[in-house]
This record gives sequence, structure tokens and C-alpha cells, in this order.
Amino acid sequence: MIFEQIESEGLAHYSYFIGAGRAAFVVDPRRDVDVYLDLAAAHGVGITHIFETHRNEDYCTGSLELAGATGAEILHGAALDFAFGRPVKDGDVVGVGSLEVRVLDTPGHTDESISLALAEAGHADTPFMVFTGDALFAGDVGRTDFFKERLEEMAGRLYDSLHDTILTLGDGVIVCPAHGAGSVCGGAISARPLTTVGHEKRTNPLLQLDKPEFIARKRAEHHPIPPYFATMERYNLAGPPPLGEAPSMRPMTAGAVENAAGRGAVLVDLRGPSAFAGGHIPGSLNIWEAGISAYLGYYAGYDQPIIFVDDAASAPRNAETQARRLGFDTIDGYLAGGMRAWYRSGRPIARCGTCSVREVEPGAKDQFILDVRDVATRLAVGTIPGSHSIPVEEIVGRIDEVPGYKKILVYCNTGFKGSLAASVLLKNGCQDVTNILGGMSAWIEAGREVRKGAGREWPPLPA
Amino acid sequence: MIFEQIESEGLAHYSYFIGAGRAAFVVDPRRDVDVYLDLAAAHGVGITHIFETHRNEDYCTGSLELAGATGAEILHGAALDFAFGRPVKDGDVVGVGSLEVRVLDTPGHTDESISLALAEAGHADTPFMVFTGDALFAGDVGRTDFFKERLEEMAGRLYDSLHDTILTLGDGVIVCPAHGAGSVCGGAISARPLTTVGHEKRTNPLLQLDKPEFIARKRAEHHPIPPYFATMERYNLAGPPPLGEAPSMRPMTAGAVENAAGRGAVLVDLRGPSAFAGGHIPGSLNIWEAGISAYLGYYAGYDQPIIFVDDAASAPRNAETQARRLGFDTIDGYLAGGMRAWYRSGRPIARCGTCSVREVEPGAKDQFILDVRDVATRLAVGTIPGSHSIPVEEIVGRIDEVPGYKKILVYCNTGFKGSLAASVLLKNGCQDVTNILGGMSAWIEAGREVRKGAGREWPPLPA
Amino acid sequence: MIFEQIESEGLAHYSYFIGAGRAAFVVDPRRDVDVYLDLAAAHGVGITHIFETHRNEDYCTGSLELAGATGAEILHGAALDFAFGRPVKDGDVVGVGSLEVRVLDTPGHTDESISLALAEAGHADTPFMVFTGDALFAGDVGRTDFFKERLEEMAGRLYDSLHDTILTLGDGVIVCPAHGAGSVCGGAISARPLTTVGHEKRTNPLLQLDKPEFIARKRAEHHPIPPYFATMERYNLAGPPPLGEAPSMRPMTAGAVENAAGRGAVLVDLRGPSAFAGGHIPGSLNIWEAGISAYLGYYAGYDQPIIFVDDAASAPRNAETQARRLGFDTIDGYLAGGMRAWYRSGRPIARCGTCSVREVEPGAKDQFILDVRDVATRLAVGTIPGSHSIPVEEIVGRIDEVPGYKKILVYCNTGFKGSLAASVLLKNGCQDVTNILGGMSAWIEAGREVRKGAGREWPPLPA
Amino acid sequence: MIFEQIESEGLAHYSYFIGAGRAAFVVDPRRDVDVYLDLAAAHGVGITHIFETHRNEDYCTGSLELAGATGAEILHGAALDFAFGRPVKDGDVVGVGSLEVRVLDTPGHTDESISLALAEAGHADTPFMVFTGDALFAGDVGRTDFFKERLEEMAGRLYDSLHDTILTLGDGVIVCPAHGAGSVCGGAISARPLTTVGHEKRTNPLLQLDKPEFIARKRAEHHPIPPYFATMERYNLAGPPPLGEAPSMRPMTAGAVENAAGRGAVLVDLRGPSAFAGGHIPGSLNIWEAGISAYLGYYAGYDQPIIFVDDAASAPRNAETQARRLGFDTIDGYLAGGMRAWYRSGRPIARCGTCSVREVEPGAKDQFILDVRDVATRLAVGTIPGSHSIPVEEIVGRIDEVPGYKKILVYCNTGFKGSLAASVLLKNGCQDVTNILGGMSAWIEAGREVRKGAGREWPPLPA
Repeated sequence: MIFEQIESEGLAHYSYFIGAGRAAFVVDPRRDVDVYLDLAAAHGVGITHIFETHRNEDYCTGSLELAGATGAEILHGAALDFAFGRPVKDGDVVGVGSLEVRVLDTPGHTDESISLALAEAGHADTPFMVFTGDALFAGDVGRTDFFKERLEEMAGRLYDSLHDTILTLGDGVIVCPAHGAGSVCGGAISARPLTTVGHEKRTNPLLQLDKPEFIARKRAEHHPIPPYFATMERYNLAGPPPLGEAPSMRPMTAGAVENAAGRGAVLVDLRGPSAFAGGHIPGSLNIWEAGISAYLGYYAGYDQPIIFVDDAASAPRNAETQARRLGFDTIDGYLAGGMRAWYRSGRPIARCGTCSVREVEPGAKDQFILDVRDVATRLAVGTIPGSHSIPVEEIVGRIDEVPGYKKILVYCNTGFKGSLAASVLLKNGCQDVTNILGGMSAWIEAGREVRKGAGREWPPLPA
Repeated sequence: MIFEQIESEGLAHYSYFIGAGRAAFVVDPRRDVDVYLDLAAAHGVGITHIFETHRNEDYCTGSLELAGATGAEILHGAALDFAFGRPVKDGDVVGVGSLEVRVLDTPGHTDESISLALAEAGHADTPFMVFTGDALFAGDVGRTDFFKERLEEMAGRLYDSLHDTILTLGDGVIVCPAHGAGSVCGGAISARPLTTVGHEKRTNPLLQLDKPEFIARKRAEHHPIPPYFATMERYNLAGPPPLGEAPSMRPMTAGAVENAAGRGAVLVDLRGPSAFAGGHIPGSLNIWEAGISAYLGYYAGYDQPIIFVDDAASAPRNAETQARRLGFDTIDGYLAGGMRAWYRSGRPIARCGTCSVREVEPGAKDQFILDVRDVATRLAVGTIPGSHSIPVEEIVGRIDEVPGYKKILVYCNTGFKGSLAASVLLKNGCQDVTNILGGMSAWIEAGREVRKGAGREWPPLPA
Repeated sequence: MIFEQIESEGLAHYSYFIGAGRAAFVVDPRRDVDVYLDLAAAHGVGITHIFETHRNEDYCTGSLELAGATGAEILHGAALDFAFGRPVKDGDVVGVGSLEVRVLDTPGHTDESISLALAEAGHADTPFMVFTGDALFAGDVGRTDFFKERLEEMAGRLYDSLHDTILTLGDGVIVCPAHGAGSVCGGAISARPLTTVGHEKRTNPLLQLDKPEFIARKRAEHHPIPPYFATMERYNLAGPPPLGEAPSMRPMTAGAVENAAGRGAVLVDLRGPSAFAGGHIPGSLNIWEAGISAYLGYYAGYDQPIIFVDDAASAPRNAETQARRLGFDTIDGYLAGGMRAWYRSGRPIARCGTCSVREVEPGAKDQFILDVRDVATRLAVGTIPGSHSIPVEEIVGRIDEVPGYKKILVYCNTGFKGSLAASVLLKNGCQDVTNILGGMSAWIEAGREVRKGAGREWPPLPA
Repeated sequence: MIFEQIESEGLAHYSYFIGAGRAAFVVDPRRDVDVYLDLAAAHGVGITHIFETHRNEDYCTGSLELAGATGAEILHGAALDFAFGRPVKDGDVVGVGSLEVRVLDTPGHTDESISLALAEAGHADTPFMVFTGDALFAGDVGRTDFFKERLEEMAGRLYDSLHDTILTLGDGVIVCPAHGAGSVCGGAISARPLTTVGHEKRTNPLLQLDKPEFIARKRAEHHPIPPYFATMERYNLAGPPPLGEAPSMRPMTAGAVENAAGRGAVLVDLRGPSAFAGGHIPGSLNIWEAGISAYLGYYAGYDQPIIFVDDAASAPRNAETQARRLGFDTIDGYLAGGMRAWYRSGRPIARCGTCSVREVEPGAKDQFILDVRDVATRLAVGTIPGSHSIPVEEIVGRIDEVPGYKKILVYCNTGFKGSLAASVLLKNGCQDVTNILGGMSAWIEAGREVRKGAGREWPPLPA
């Protein structure tokens, strides 16, 4: 048996390649499907089935790409009218090689969500693995906030799916979720890449609640909904544009980058906070490479040209791949030769301040300390005394709350989101912006005073 | 400066990737263009120009694929009306980064053949490199036999191109040819991957001849013209079908392979001679992996499904790539799991005899010793006494010359073409076929008697 | 958290690399430790601890190599006096980054066998994973036959370790065993690479037995003990020779191979059965590449030079690596250029017969059909009527049972062990040996008559 | 024939792997010899000979490592008493496979320098390639300044070696030098990776001079002699310490790095100038990754622990490899997790100023503009008006010339050496140091005024 968990970093998304005998199936493939084709070729197996546990919101599905390359059949839940594939219903059994996949309706995250119980052929009563999509994660459960007016209903349905279906499979069943720690699809997913029904029963805090408690808890959750989700939902219902038809990213001279920026291109600086601080292209946004999946969707539109800037001489393929996974097919190019090419061209350079936590004076005058972490982290970890709260995702919309005439000190957990926030502030006209390197982690390590409680954050927290 | 010579093995074809500053050009790209895109990305340069030294006969050009992926301009000689690209004429200079490429008309192999002299910008008078396409190789020159009725004219033009144009560039100019040792585009190309004008002047036997001698020598040459060349010429004039649209090769069960063979598919066994001899699928042809480029074009038509059979569990990507380079887009699939899957399925197995040179008795009765090497090699190296000559490329057409009722002993240089010939004979009804492992190389090493002279080969050699 | 299961193919051995925060530990490292160092470097973590679940019998430990390269501490069970590392006892807890490893005494396979329960720091009561070494596999349990005079005692202790310790951890605990399907350390290990306590409780046949039944069942098992195990046990107690000091494998000419064979070197032909059958070096043994781990230890001594022969032009690194894992440091070299170099040298060639199952006539005269599968498989699957049984591991010692004057037909499951057996028979003077390609699998697929019952095998089966 | 030019980047050193038939030789191997072993294995050839064109000064030879792994014989010039290998003399011919290597004495760079003319066996009179070591480069010739008191003699001998030996081989001979553009072993080596005798005759400015002119020109050259050269010369005469015995680099926490720095370790920050400027460990030196080969030897002693700091999570293997090539075996480790780990630890952070060329005011008060380029470049390219000259290699020794109380603006060609210089100034107590990003390249591109002439550099230029 071949078992491969494929992580799409940044998205913290897991897809799965499972083979037995001469056949294999894939669960929730991402848009760039070479990894599955390579696995199939290496093992000499044919991919015969592709399962979509649900219509995904956070990335483009690769089902059509993969089906096109292999002839495999796409299977998905019946409660949504996909423009492709074949609907399956609860109890359907699909044989793949020497294995059997049984479909379980597990709505809650969405209506059409399914889970897939895997057993050896002829042993359907003793499955050994279950693919739970966005229903159950290690240490958390799926979001139920996509249908604002049905929030309570969906939370209740998820509770039933978990307790009546997934948890009844047996404590010894290995749980393969669609997301790991860091995903925007869950709030507190554990770092364990795999888990089991039994371990979740014992330790998952959401599974210790009764139904009313569970619904109340889910109602109280506050998850970001990046603007790009709407496009993903549309793509994943109709089928996204074929990846092969997107023009590939090209190297650009410093002059060409400057011209493109003048015509509205989004410049994304992929470097770390200190490199951005030391010298960047005026107007560029600082989304570090591993942050593209999480943050590009907030700052780029699907009709805007995107240009990447990095320190490396080679093309930033990883960033391009992440952007494509979000359906961004308007990546114009990248600054050939990296930032050193910009420097050498004699063009203007912008800078951002940096400081260590040791240099921060909470009570100093004419400064504005801005916490860009999400509110839940702020509450849980504590704050730098006197800091204001605007999560990084919300800064553009709440720029009026920032007193641009003051010295602005930005911080997050470690400094990356802080630098992104700083780049947004600089682009929006703030003059004196400093990123506190190391962020709250450093603040705590250095033994500085941690203020507990919400502080001056806005808007008020959900009750 | 980036200098990369990319060898397409099997074809013994060289393409070139040359970069300087932020720009690069490619000479004679093959159909699978990832290697050029990868080089461009790794070095952070943009491919701006693609040169075709001539309309190639032995492989599909990748110019259109590469131009599509990069926006580069395709440039070619003006004496043929290509359906794509832009014609350039003698003396044209193309700047690429800090380099200059000067076009040289060097007809002879074909009318539109050009060479490309490379110099640093501003130093056009001292080129340091020349791309000679099929005009000049290390130790040999290009074929001039494609226009049967103009054979003498073309040989004369090649002579002039060599002596009046290429050799006048300066002895110190590095020569980058389009083919290396083993190419069907030359008879006796040296193993040196690079050479120089000066070294060829001193050592290339063709360059020691005066014009009448040269023409006479070229008239006397005898080169195979594989049937697939016609398709290549058509493709390379009009632009070949896009590679991306060809369906990819799929794994097939033993039963599916058997069925496809029954419907006319060509089964190509990629294993070595002894593996084929020990047990193969009845009716399959034995073209070892490295021989696909040279021999598939003789035995498969462009409308026939092709199925590969190998020993490995993984997909035979190398063979597929070679076939695609020849424009074969009808590769149905491959036997999943390799020959062991066939064996395990309990299906019939065919065998072929093998022997060492020590077991051969030239004068034995009721045997027919068949030499399948080309005639020039036969003449140059000598023969096993009493052997008949039918080059492997001609066996199908000359099958009537083979006494199928006798024990047939086949040999070539080392055993691979011998096994291909044996597979053709078996497929055509011969019962008792033995491949002499090690071929003429082994015969000589073992100290057996070598007969000089043409022997009983047919047709009569050119005078 | 980083979780990597590293399979050493051939041995079907699993080692594990687990990281969290900046630290990582390795369980049961193999001798070639680059894979662990590469993982540590890629993730920027330091390997701080190495665990030996027991003194292994089937491969060389890499603990000392890995400790030397990293400074990690080696930990092992206390019931055996290792010459290296530090003994740990039941209940000891070792912190690694944000994880805790709790030592569990689980004797039975050996006295010093331990299992390792993994939990997040501060949650020792809810472990999520357990490394069970050779105590518990997916679908099977460890061997208890290494101490012949204590067989019953060891089986009883293993029963207690399983039921009183491992199975009490919780049904939802993921089980990471030291071996997968195909290992010589278990008889019927499942193909699932991971399992859980709960799934094993429900489905593992050995765990359904009460203690007397369990002991009886373990008493009745019949496992091979390859002769190389003795050396492994010695090495793994004292610490094996450093890998870096072993001279590396060198390319050899055909002449050098012939000379070395004359001086007693073991020639190991790595090709598949049909390639071996079609032509091999006289006297060579046919151990296919993936079979080196399982069979080299039967046919080579630790003081004998070993020479590999293959079809590939490149060096057989995979075979060399497998041999080194067994502690064989006397690998002289390999035939440079592969078998074609031998063929071309004009040296003698030996052959072996092959046939399909369709050509076998069970009742024919003057033939001896030899089944070389292990006796348990023979009993479970059935036999070709009239066949004799000598497991491939025992042929050398039981060569007198083979009537060398007859036509000998050899078969196994699929043909690989059959070819190894054929090569042993040829080396021992049998003249007319034929390997039935596809073996029993093909026999059944082709619908031939399967004889049930033990047949004429020897020695008598355990009662 | 196999021809591979292996570039050791940073050193701009070329070694060569040449194979023909079953044998291969290597010219001037570097210390980490895996690349040669991999090539040999991939092609199935044995390395039989290793040539040292001379006792190298700028890197550790790998001859002993490679000979140990292969059994190859080491050959070198006779005019120096190496502690290993066998001396060869002018005219000696060494056969390797189907090739012949003829030794040519070509002293001048050093006494024992040899070149190696390569021809096909039996054609020694028509070599097609020559390995010229440090005698002849593309566009330049070797240094002759290592023996201060014999400067004129060595220059004269080099002139004779070039004109009487190398240039007489024939214009068409390909020249394979030991160094490419950027090497410290030549002043103005061209970017062409290969060249020819004929092309150098026509275009190499040094070859256009008569002997007195040549000697005068070589006398006037001014090359840096890094302090580490002395160790290299000692190592390469006696044989360097085996690479395998050096302890491997380990990940270190921020605290461990701080402690090591306190005990005298050299912290080398591998990031680019803007990352260093934005926030670095106080006291660290900024040698960007590609600059390790060129600059580590100036700032680290062979008995000092070295610690690398980077932005990446993974280990800086490339920097380690470069350091090992210079014989540095005291690399303690690297900051695990990269600079973000330092930031998160809450430790102090130092910064450096940056500016674009547009922000520089040459005539401003209280500033000191420092040009750290070498004097020859300064003379050739021109300067920022009013700038002082101290080449980066000399700053430590000339720190007294820097007015530390002023605002110091540093520049080089593009900004990397400028950042190194800035880090040295900061470490030596300067308070206000700004690196002009883009350096002189940007200055010129931006159209700022370029001052010609030497300016205020010191010491006076050689007459």
C-alpha cells in the first residue's frame, strides 16, 4: 500500500495519494498536479479516482487537471451542483485496487462535505483510515461560518457529523484531515500531521462539548474570510481555468518593473523583514515567501498584474506556485537579478525602521504602537502595554484609525506580519514606521511587561 | 556568460543555451523545452531569441513551444518558406545581452542552412564561437543527399560554405555542431563534443579534399533515410503539433496490452538483448531504450498505437520522451509493473536464442549467419566468414532473402541491433533465431577469424 | 511537528525521524545515516537523541554513525549490556523539543526490547504515538524464536508486553512499527505502513488469542534465520565498523571480474530472471536488486569479495547500499559497463531455460519440478502437482536431494527466487535447469490445477 | 568522450573531468570530491589519474581525497617537492582510455606549473585541448607576483611558456584554464568559460606585448594576497587534512551563538546588504554567501571558531562548503532557524544605514565617503567626488585612516563589499555608517558626476 500525505505549505493543506495494487486515488488534489503524476509513475500505478471532500474555499482544486492527465473519475458530495465530476451519496463504496472507499455524508463545514472511510476490500466494517476533509482536524474541527444566516444550523450539523458518523468508526481509525497547523480553515489545529478518532475523542477540546455548548462555541468563533475566497468558490464549483494556459512568469528589468508599477501592478517583496527594512522599492508590499498563500489574497485582485521581487538571482517559482494555487494567473514577472539589480540601476529606495524589543518605550510620547495580530491571539498571549489592535488583514480598511503623523511602532508575533503591515502603512502615506523585530515572542523572551486583557482593540470582541 | 550544450541522447543532437547579462538565446531547441526554461529560471535570464540553423529532418523542433513559453523570436534561414518565425539573411547581426550573433549563409546540407558566429558586442570581427548546425561536425561534415537530383550541386555548395565561410572565421573559433557521434546525420562524427575551426582544418578528413574530390566523396556516401524523416520535414516547416496537447502515456494491465496488440498496436520491448531472449511478449519488437530515437521511426507509423514494455516498475519516461521528439504522439501506454506483470498473468511467452561467439561454427550446415550492421561498417571492420548482409533498417523489406527454415544466427556490432533484427525475424515467422551476444566486437576480442571484403551483401556497394 | 517514516526497502525496515521545535530524535537508524542528517539540515533542527528499540538482528545499526555526526545521545533497553549508549528503564521520560518520550519495557522479541510512547510535553497521560520496534506490527507481532530454549517464556513475555503495556495506551494511539510487509522479522505483516492500537485490537489475528493459544501459535511458527544474523547481533552489541572506512566499490573490466571469480569472489547478477536466463557469467548467482537485503546474507560470507553485475552502465549503488546495511564491507566492485561489456569481451556465456506455465507438463518423465517457496506459503497457496519442496534458502545445504541428471523445473511465487534457485543449481553442476516465469501466480492465473496439501516437502512440517 | 568543466563558484575555479572508454582523469580537483565520484559512477568509468597543474594557493587540493576514494595516481610538476603524488616532466605522455595526455612544462606562475595537452591516442601531434592551469586564462594570464624577489624572472618565464609552448600547439586547440572571471588569480579574466589558442593570440591583450613590455606590465600589476594563501600553500605541498575528519556544522540556539561570540567566535552574516542593514547581531561581519570564498580568508583565522548566520531555516551548506575549500575546519555551527530566531529571542539588534545614490551629497559636511573597491577598478571606472580609498581587504589594517566621529558613507561596485566594509567599521567602533546600495554602478546609472583620476587614495599607486 502506498500512503503519501502531500502538504501544500503556506496553505497548510493536505492532499493524499493512496495506492494499492495497480490503482490509486487522490483526495483533494491541488492545482499543480505533477506531484501526483510523479508518484503514479514512480510506483507504476494508474490514478483511477479523485475525491473532493467538499468544494474548497482556500485554494483551486486540481481535480480537472488531474482527470485530464489520467482519465480518472472525479467524485464529490451530492448536496452541491458541481459543474464537473459525479456525485456520490452516503454509503456508496468505491473499489480502488485492493482497497475500498466508503462515502460518509459529513455536512457542517459545507452542505456537500463528505468523509471517506478506507478499508481493505471485503473488510468494510473495519476501516483503518478516514479522510475527513474540513470536518475534523487534529485538535480542532472545521469552520461553520460560511453561511452567515445558517451559522447555528451548520454548527449543529457538524456536531452530528462528528458524533454520529466519524467518531463511531472506531477509536483506532487514523484520521487524515485536509488541513494542518496554520491553516485559515481552522483556528487551533495541532501540529500533529496525523491523528486518530480515539485521540481526538480524548483530547480535542471541541469534542468534549455537548451540542448546545458546541454550537455556542462555534458561534463565538471569529475567522478571517479573505476576499479571494469568493473566486475560489466560483472556480471550484465551475472548474478553474486550466493551469497550462496561464502564461509563465518572465524576468523583468528594473525599468520594466518601474513602468509596470506605474500602470498599477502590485509589487510583492518576498524577502524577510530586515531585508525589506534595509531597502525596498517604494510602494512595494512585503509578503515573505511563506506568507504568499495566506496574504496575497488580501492585497491583489484577480485583474491586477503581480510582480515578485526577491533577493535571489533565480525566478521565485515557489511564490508563483503558491499564487497559482490561489488562482492568480496574472503574474507578470519578477525582477530579474533580484533587488541588487534595482540597487544597481540607481533608482530610488525606500526604507522602514526596525528595532529590538529592548528599544521600545511603551509610555513614550508621539508614538503609536500597533498590534497587527488577530484578536484571539492578542487575548490569549497578552499585549505590549498601550498598544492598539488592527489585525493585518484589516489595515487597509481601517487606515483612518492610524495617526500617520506619529512615529508608528508595529508588532506581530515574530515580525513578518509586522513588516507586511509596515509596508501597507508606508504605501498609504505614513512616514515614520518601525517594525519591532521578533514581535511579541521577543517581548516575552526579553522579560518585558505583558499586559493582559483586550486593551484598546477595536471592534469590540464577540460576546 | 552562460554556455550550455544540451545533448539529446539517442539522437546525438546538440542544442545550445547561451546567456550573457539578462538575455539568452537557444540554438535548435528540441521539442521538450523544459531544459531551456529551467536554465533561464536558474540564471534569472530571459530567452529572447531562438535560432534554427536549418529545417531539421531527424527530430521535431521545439521553437514554437519555446517561443510560446517565453515570447522569444524565432529566426531561421531565408531560403525556405517556414510557416513560423522570421527569416534572416547573411550578415544580419542580432544582439543578445552583451553578445552579438552574426548570421552566415552556409547552404549545402539544405538550402536554408545558416551558421551563427558569436562575438562579444562590438567585436564582430573576432568571433569566438560558431554554431554550424549540420554543416560542420567534429571529424565530419553534413549530409548532402536529401535532394537526390541535386546531389552534386549540394555537395559543391557545402564545400563552398565550409571553405569560403566557416573556415575563414579563424582557426581559434570554437565550433558547436548540431550533432555528435552516433547521429544519423553524419557518418563518422568524432566523440569530441566540441571542436574548433583550426582543429577541423588539420584533422577532418573531408576538409583535406579539393572540391572535385569532396563532391565525389559525398556522392559515394550511403546514409539511411528513416521513413519518419518525411513527417519531421513536414512538421518542421509548418510547426509541429503542440506537445502539451498529446495525451500522456498510461499504465496498462497485461490483459489490456494483449488486447491492444490484437488490434494492431506496436509492442516495443525496451529491455536489453538477454532479457528479451529469456522471455518476451510474442510479437513484440526489441528496441532497447537508447535505441528508440534511431529505430522507432522504422517500425512504427504515425497512426499506430505504441505500447512500451520494460523491466522496471515505473513508467518508461525516457522512451516516451524520445518518441515525442520524433513526433510520435500515439503512445498508448506501457505495461504496468513491467514484464514481471506479464509473467505473473500466466500469458504465453516467446523466447529467442543467444550464444557467445565461442559457440559459432561458421561452416556449419543448415544455418544462415546474418550480419545486420550497415554496409560501411561491414566493409571497414570485416565480417564473420560466410555471413550475409541485410542492414537492420532493411530487414522488413528484404525478408524474402532470409531462409526461414534454417537456424538463423544474427549479429551486429555488440548485440543490440542483432536483437532488434531477431525480434523482426521472429515476428515475421522465423522459428529458430539466435542472437550472437557481443557481436563483431566479441568476435574480434575472442580472436576468431575476420573475413575482409564485402562478402555476400546486397545490394552491390556504390562504386 | 516533523514526522518522517523512512523505509529501507528490501529489509522492509522502518526508522523514524521526529522533530518538534529545534530538536529531533531518531528511532532505530540504519547504517547509512545521510537521510537523517539531510532531514535535520532541511528543517534546521538538531538530532539530540537516538533510540534503539532493541538490538537488531537483520541489519547494522547506524546509531554510532549518527551519534558521531551529531553528538546525539544513544538510548536503549537496560536488559542487554550494549557496548555503547545509555540504558533506560521503564517509565523514564526523555524530553525532545516540545515532545516527551516515555520508555516502556516490552520484552518478548528480545529481553531488552522497549517501546516508546510519544506525547506532547505535559500530556504524558495522552500519548498519541508509540514506536513498537519488533513487538507489534500491522497485522502481526514480533518473532520469539531467537532463544530456542526459552521459546515459550519469550512468547509469554511478548503476550504480556502487548496486552499489559502497548494495548493499554489507548485505542487511538498510532502504532509505528520497525518493520513492514515482506520483512523477515514477521510472517504476515500487513501492507499498511501505519496502524493504531485500536485497529490492531480489532483485526490483528495474534491479538485475538488468549495467552496459551498465543504461546502455542508462536511455538508453531517457522522463520528462517539467515546466517548473517549472527554477525549483525555481534555488530549491534559492540557497535559495527564505521561505514566511512569501508573502501568504495570500483568499476572492473570483464577481465578483472573473471580473475576475481577465479580467486573466489562471489559474482552477484542483479538483473531480472529473463535477462539472467538469456545470458550470464558462468557461476554467477542471480539475486535481483530488490532481493539483496533478503538473500545476499545466505550466499556471501563476510570475508569473501563480492562483485555486482548489472545491465546498467552506472554503478549499482542501491545494491551496494543494501549490502552495507547488512555489514558487508568487502564489495570489490562491479562490472563496468554492465553485461554488455562482458558480451563484447568475447568471454563464455551461460544460459538458463525459461518457460511459461502453459508449457509445463506435471506428469512428464525425467523431470524434477522444484518448489523453492517457503513451506508456509506452499501450504497456504497450494502447489504444482508433483513438485518437490526445498526453500531457496536451503538449497545449498540440500543439494543432494536434487537429481541433477534430470530436467529441473524451478518455481517460486513469481520467478525471482526461482531464478536465484536456478543459478544455485547451475553453479552446483546441474545441466538442464528451467525457471518457470511467473511462478505460482501465473500457474493460478492460467487456470492450471493447484494441488492442495504439503506434497513431498521435507523436512516434515511442525505439528 | 566525457568532458565536464566543474566550476567552484566564489573561487571561480575550474576543475575538469575527462573520460574516454572506461577510464577518466581529473585536473585540479577541489577538496569536496563527490562531484567527480558521481560523474565516474554515472558514466561507469574509473578515475585513473589526477593532475595538479601546480601547487595551488587559493584553495585546498582534493587530490588526496580523490586518490583515496579511487586509487587514482596523482601527477604533478617536478620542480617542487610535493609530499604526495608522482612528479612528471616535460614530454611525458600518460594514456587514459583512448586519450593521451602530454605534459608541458609551463613555469612562470610558479616553478612547477605544467600544462596538459590532450590528444586522441596515436595523434599526439594534433592535440585538441590543453589544460593551462594558471598560465593562460581567457583574456588574461597568470599572476607572477608570488615570489617578490623573483618577479621579473617569473614574468619572463611565463612569457616564454606562453609563446614557446602553449601558443605553438596550434590555433585550433581549446584552452581549458583553471580560473574564470572573478578569480583572485587573475585581474581581468573574461567571462568566456572556454577559449582557444587562436582566439587568445588575437584578442588577449597580454599576448600582444613583446617580452620587455610583458615583464613591465606584470611588474606593474597589483594583486591582493589574502592571508589564508600561506596556509593553502602549506596544505597543498604537504597534503591537506582529510575532509571527512572535520566535525560537521551544528545548529545552535541564539543563546549558544551569543556565548560563542563572547568567547571569540567569528560571526559571519551571509545575508545581502539590505538584510544586514535592517537588523543584525552586534559584532557580526557581513560576508554574503557568494563572497565567502573571496573574503572569509581575510577575516577568520584557522584557529578561530566560525559561526554562520543566515535568513534560511536550513543549514548554510554552500557557505560551509566554500569555507572547507579554503581549509577552514573550525566551523562551529550556524544559528538554527536563521535571524528570525535571534529576533524572537529578544536579544539586542544592531543596524547599519543604507541610502540610494540619489541621496548622496558629495560636498556635505561632517561626512567621510569611503571607496572600498580595489585601486585598479577605482582608476579604471572613476570615483564619487571627494571619496577616500581603502580597499575592503585592507580596512582592518588601516582603520586609523577612518574618522570614526563623522558620518561614514561606504561604497563599492554594487553594495556587497560595501556592506562587508560597513560591518568591519561598525565592529571597530564607528557609530554612523551608511552603505550606498548599488554602489558605483548605481552612481553611473543615475547620471551622477564621476570623478576621474586616483583621487585621495593611499598608498600611492605603483609607477
